[in-house]
Amino acid sequence: MNAIDTLVTSYLAIFNTTNPAARRALVDSVFAESCEYTDPLAQVAGRAAVSDFIGAVQAQFPGVAFVLDGKVDAHHGQARFTWRAMAEGVDEPVAIGFDVVVVDANRLSRVYGFLDKAPGAA
Amino acid sequence: MNAIDTLVTSYLAIFNTTNPAARRALVDSVFAESCEYTDPLAQVAGRAAVSDFIGAVQAQFPGVAFVLDGKVDAHHGQARFTWRAMAEGVDEPVAIGFDVVVVDANRLSRVYGFLDKAPGAA
Repeated sequence: MNAIDTLVTSYLAIFNTTNPAARRALVDSVFAESCEYTDPLAQVAGRAAVSDFIGAVQAQFPGVAFVLDGKVDAHHGQARFTWRAMAEGVDEPVAIGFDVVVVDANRLSRVYGFLDKAPGAA
Repeated sequence: MNAIDTLVTSYLAIFNTTNPAARRALVDSVFAESCEYTDPLAQVAGRAAVSDFIGAVQAQFPGVAFVLDGKVDAHHGQARFTWRAMAEGVDEPVAIGFDVVVVDANRLSRVYGFLDKAPGAA
């Protein structure tokens, strides 16, 4: 695995880490200090806000696991990938998303998120 | 059409504008001064470099038209879309690409490009 694959794996692991201190520690290791995260439902800046936002997602979708769907396509410090949010024992994803991430000094500086299936959509 | 759709349409029009002065004028209207463009094959910064890069693409693929494939998915000043590079009278695209663009003050500040079909690939 190259560095950007590892970063993406760790990024998705944050969404599956519900302990607030552990989640924040993972955010600090994955995100740059001046990070920005934007998806159709949220726009936040800075590590504390990113960690709080992910905590809010976890509270909204308890027990849902966020997993990589397919490969990470990376070049020049940028990558694209699709993820799925899976409830236990249910084949149909709760949500399907697509992110482009930008790497700065081995940490994520920007996440540009999109939804292929919004939560609550059929 | 909203502002970001118009910007994406104009962005693709740049690739189809081979007159250098006209191309540069379109670059100036579409791209922010401090713009950065990155795809798997090129990484350039600033309007002059972007215009020169697009001129080089045109020289490499003469007569090839760049067209939007599907819809532009936009929110919070960011958008994703797929494009196709089409040679005249040929159904199979020369290349298929996917871009995420970021808008700052009604102009493109960042283009994060990826290739779904690289030029020369079967």
